[in-house]
Amino acid sequence: MSFLQEVVDILLAYIVESFDRETKVIDFHYPNELMQRNNWELQDEPESLDDILVSCRATLKYAIKTAHPRYFNQLSTGLDMVGLAADWLTSTANTNMFTYEVAPVFVLLEYVTLKKMREIIGWQDGSGDGIFSPGGAISNMYAMLLARFKMFPEVKEKGMSSVPRLAAFTSEHSHFSIKKGAAALGIGTESVICVKGFVPFFVSATAGTTVYGAFDPLIAVSDICKKYNVWFHVDGAWGGSLLMSRRHRWKLDGVDRANSVTWNPHKMMSVPLQCSALLVREEGLMQNCNQMHACYLFQQDKHYDLSYDTGDKALQCGRHVDIFKLWLMWRAKGTIGFESQIDKCLELSEYLYNKIKDREGYEMVFDGKPQHTNVCFWYLPPGMRHIVDKEEKNKRLHKVAPVIKARMMEYGTTMVSYQPQGDKVNFFRMVISNPAATFEDIDFLIEEIERLGHDL
Amino acid sequence: MSFLQEVVDILLAYIVESFDRETKVIDFHYPNELMQRNNWELQDEPESLDDILVSCRATLKYAIKTAHPRYFNQLSTGLDMVGLAADWLTSTANTNMFTYEVAPVFVLLEYVTLKKMREIIGWQDGSGDGIFSPGGAISNMYAMLLARFKMFPEVKEKGMSSVPRLAAFTSEHSHFSIKKGAAALGIGTESVICVKGFVPFFVSATAGTTVYGAFDPLIAVSDICKKYNVWFHVDGAWGGSLLMSRRHRWKLDGVDRANSVTWNPHKMMSVPLQCSALLVREEGLMQNCNQMHACYLFQQDKHYDLSYDTGDKALQCGRHVDIFKLWLMWRAKGTIGFESQIDKCLELSEYLYNKIKDREGYEMVFDGKPQHTNVCFWYLPPGMRHIVDKEEKNKRLHKVAPVIKARMMEYGTTMVSYQPQGDKVNFFRMVISNPAATFEDIDFLIEEIERLGHDL
Repeated sequence: MSFLQEVVDILLAYIVESFDRETKVIDFHYPNELMQRNNWELQDEPESLDDILVSCRATLKYAIKTAHPRYFNQLSTGLDMVGLAADWLTSTANTNMFTYEVAPVFVLLEYVTLKKMREIIGWQDGSGDGIFSPGGAISNMYAMLLARFKMFPEVKEKGMSSVPRLAAFTSEHSHFSIKKGAAALGIGTESVICVKGFVPFFVSATAGTTVYGAFDPLIAVSDICKKYNVWFHVDGAWGGSLLMSRRHRWKLDGVDRANSVTWNPHKMMSVPLQCSALLVREEGLMQNCNQMHACYLFQQDKHYDLSYDTGDKALQCGRHVDIFKLWLMWRAKGTIGFESQIDKCLELSEYLYNKIKDREGYEMVFDGKPQHTNVCFWYLPPGMRHIVDKEEKNKRLHKVAPVIKARMMEYGTTMVSYQPQGDKVNFFRMVISNPAATFEDIDFLIEEIERLGHDL
Repeated sequence: MSFLQEVVDILLAYIVESFDRETKVIDFHYPNELMQRNNWELQDEPESLDDILVSCRATLKYAIKTAHPRYFNQLSTGLDMVGLAADWLTSTANTNMFTYEVAPVFVLLEYVTLKKMREIIGWQDGSGDGIFSPGGAISNMYAMLLARFKMFPEVKEKGMSSVPRLAAFTSEHSHFSIKKGAAALGIGTESVICVKGFVPFFVSATAGTTVYGAFDPLIAVSDICKKYNVWFHVDGAWGGSLLMSRRHRWKLDGVDRANSVTWNPHKMMSVPLQCSALLVREEGLMQNCNQMHACYLFQQDKHYDLSYDTGDKALQCGRHVDIFKLWLMWRAKGTIGFESQIDKCLELSEYLYNKIKDREGYEMVFDGKPQHTNVCFWYLPPGMRHIVDKEEKNKRLHKVAPVIKARMMEYGTTMVSYQPQGDKVNFFRMVISNPAATFEDIDFLIEEIERLGHDL
């Protein structure tokens, strides 16, 4: 117990440090260097608890401070104290979402929360089904699996040889998990486009694309799905949380027509990783699709209502308890707390957009105000601003973001993502999901980009 | 911070209680009753932190004490303090296994640990590949996915219509995840047996079946796989940990011939949930099979060695950090610490077996000493011991275990699993994976079964 308390003291100090802008976001070292500095090998003999505490400190020293107000590198940032407390409690309870028998409270809280999320989506009385899965990619794969099963239930026993060649549709900017899912499920990545002779079975519209934060027009897509009787999935892993905002939820108008929705509270709602939900409109389908009736886990002669033994809906056998942190944060903030946190992040991104859209040395990657908190832009160092030859300019510009990013990591002052996209050379993708970020942090980011990129 | 410390105090008290044999394993209530007793609805308005603490206490009050020395209900039991501390640290670090960039230490620790596990399996110099996945079912699905890709790489782009009908082989007692995987991957559950005209591509041998704890003869199976050039997978989710024991690892002789091995440290090694590894003999295959080259996540122009950006090997996009708790426990115990903990659990099960094999009122489900900690038996209450009619006896015996189990849960004194299997009526399946259990706890279980079942 005193050991645990010592670890807690280390963690509490780390948390205070993480929120301090004077602290580095990252103390970067190359892989070989980190390995050389630390003896991380596994030995036959035990170490003392003091050595274990040393390992804990070293691990945190070189960790990325994802709670830092100037860490903008991923869609998941920030650290909520209630969410963290809930995750510690979950670890301590150390159980599995198999059955009501071994996770009575968590099963019920999942029930309550999924229902609430379905109500917010707009399904009547919150009816339907759903599951928390290990991340958006798996949630999307679940959706594709259900769509295939819905159209061809025989696929479960007979495999893909019993069904026609299938085609799934999604936009160019959709998340790569749609292709991963298609590859895994035996549909093939080449079928994730429109090909004659294939039977369309699945459309995935994206609510908040990964790079641009763009929203597909859900109503228009749903009309087409309805006409052709195709499963309509909304991948709202990133943008789904805008449903919590009265100001922004119109961007998902039509989501209530979806057959399934992916929504990751671990992104825009700052729930600790991992927390991803798949919501399904039709009740019973998940169970029919995935159940294997393992009698050693799902005994039929138990003394309580077996509908609470939700484990056979999952692809997984053991399933991590991801619900409690979301549920407890929701209780602590209320729906309006999530709403104001989300609204604030969108305000910050609008502030950034307004600040740089006409600023010298900046070019926006796409026209108009961002729909989500994604702001995509190029920074052109002074020495490159007057290059006329487009090819020459792009060639040099392509190298700017990686160098600035590498310098950010060396200095440890901030982190932001970059990537190329189609024919566009490397650009910065700023995203804001950390409620601890402020207008000053946005100002800092811009100053830092200019400081680090000025000489390029 | 003071809020976090208050939660920690609640958790520490819960831990002390969990290890106390005077405490109930479970304070059981029916689902509707639990819902009525607690207002668990999600509201618009926030609650006070005091209310949040109340919720934490209520959650723990009704939780199963999985650390309790008399909780034998699942393959994962017990609570290791170093593992728990590591899990709290992981939650606090709150990052993702995408890339070295956002998880430098965890990526390296995964590298070190997977290599060590491959050495223990017996692959030369620990070469090969691997990943920590969300549980054994997903690890097994990964293996099947790799086997299919290895034989027919075109399946990734063209789907199952480009390959012959495939057959996977596994034993009747294998885990249901093999069938789930086959259903998901578009192979079909009916192909998880031998059918003429199908191309065999995958054999899953089980090292420690879920119910009996039986080990398939790995060398014999590997010979057949070699002859027919079929992927040889060993599902050691449950039994893989015996590799850590010099006394018991012979049960897995031949595991070094496997193409892939599932091994769940969250079972027999008491690592907090979830912690499951898939080890793969061939390097590079996971990357080729699963990569989608999302340029917004896996930029190719970074300033460090990109082989440490392991994210594209996974089916998931975000991947939870499951490595730190295993790594830290391994450091704290050493290999020999895990060994003695595993040996002790097997000793306890042998003690149980010896105690009941000739005891009045007990019948063993299978002959001979258990290979793992699974001890499967029927308890016959005195009133049933002299029934001659076999059908009548079985009919009554089938109801005994569910009633005793329900009573155990009502009293909250202990929990053990039961199930039917094939033509065998409900029997108890005792498993031991909690290092806190003692000979006295085994004695208690037997006394409790007799106390609760005496009148049936």
